[in-house]
Amino acid sequence: MEGLSEGEKAGFYKAVFTRRDVRSGFTGSEVGAAALARVLRAAHHAPSVGFSQPWNFILVRDRATRERVKRSFEEERLRSSRLVEEPRRSEYLSFKLEGILDAPVNVCVTYDPSRSGPFVIGRASAPEAGAYSVCCAVQNLWLAARAEGLGVGWVSILSNEALAGALGLPDGVTPVAYLCLGHVEEFAPRPDLEEAGWLPRLGLEDVVYYERWGRGEAGPGWESGVGETIRRGGPDYP
Amino acid sequence: MEGLSEGEKAGFYKAVFTRRDVRSGFTGSEVGAAALARVLRAAHHAPSVGFSQPWNFILVRDRATRERVKRSFEEERLRSSRLVEEPRRSEYLSFKLEGILDAPVNVCVTYDPSRSGPFVIGRASAPEAGAYSVCCAVQNLWLAARAEGLGVGWVSILSNEALAGALGLPDGVTPVAYLCLGHVEEFAPRPDLEEAGWLPRLGLEDVVYYERWGRGEAGPGWESGVGETIRRGGPDYP
Repeated sequence: MEGLSEGEKAGFYKAVFTRRDVRSGFTGSEVGAAALARVLRAAHHAPSVGFSQPWNFILVRDRATRERVKRSFEEERLRSSRLVEEPRRSEYLSFKLEGILDAPVNVCVTYDPSRSGPFVIGRASAPEAGAYSVCCAVQNLWLAARAEGLGVGWVSILSNEALAGALGLPDGVTPVAYLCLGHVEEFAPRPDLEEAGWLPRLGLEDVVYYERWGRGEAGPGWESGVGETIRRGGPDYP
Repeated sequence: MEGLSEGEKAGFYKAVFTRRDVRSGFTGSEVGAAALARVLRAAHHAPSVGFSQPWNFILVRDRATRERVKRSFEEERLRSSRLVEEPRRSEYLSFKLEGILDAPVNVCVTYDPSRSGPFVIGRASAPEAGAYSVCCAVQNLWLAARAEGLGVGWVSILSNEALAGALGLPDGVTPVAYLCLGHVEEFAPRPDLEEAGWLPRLGLEDVVYYERWGRGEAGPGWESGVGETIRRGGPDYP
């Protein structure tokens, strides 16, 4: 079976490599219903363990709800800042890390373990695969938003209990991601935390192993030059 | 900021909507180094909490390792089949659920909580965000593989302990996904478990709520017709 055409691939890889976690620069213009529907549909077509589709997407515009979520962010940010020493603490506290009130739409993506159950194929040995499916949906949503020209920021500096309270989640349903979605001024060339010098991007060759943990060189049985090709990151795309 | 062009979007959405969890029909032809590198590079450009990039990709071709993993699959499959009653048990056992020995390359994607730490921005309130980042990388990998004409199957009917033993994972590093990767005869029009009648695809409108859990109708403050547009799934793509 063939892959996508060169033109289709270029579009696909453009979405992947220019997607950013956007925390600032939301323009305030509205997200159209058609684009929102396409983004959600892409999310809903993610893979899920045993085809369980255990996700929900709670779309939040209500100002009071977002202010309540923002308060949880402020509390958790302060709490977590105590875990890191100066000068990293001040640097951490200087970052803009969320767009809860700036973005016109927030989306809480949740995991419902009761969905399509109790027996879900593939979940008995790996119960975590349920929440992992929801993450695949989040990544589809994120990439589709980039395709539609919409920025997304994932806010994980939040209390799950506060989110459950603000959104009325029933017992057993857990928040997986809280996303801020809207039109943005730009998609920056590099991630904010890379740009700020907080952390560097790792080399691809540093995270790829062959056959066993820690083995950085492809041995016999591998196409000659595979390691060098991976180091270069493939010839065709940025 | 604009989104992708219509042509680029079509390529992107084609990857999203025609991606499948492939468990059979691997052709046995080799995965080229360039395509493999592009797929891994796409995975490595996933978002990660605090830009921690906590993933590793262990590429497995060795037959003995794959046979060891396959034995774990067989054990877990039998064990989990005892959790479901007839006639679902026999139906479950009739499904082909993995391509461990059929696919030329297996990829174990792991989570290393020590990466870029101990303080990782965004992980103090949500420790699970580390493994969730790895899932975003898996989804990028899966979509890029589809773009390259490569099928991927995620095998979650495995013991994490068996995987850790087979691949020599150090303490603290956990397997997130075990993937079978290779050229395939086809990408089926629908997921196998939908085709087999095991579970139906849910309607998008059944998994979207507004403002709070359980509220299926968009109220005031929402663009008129947003619910209907979501029900139709957006006008432009399948």
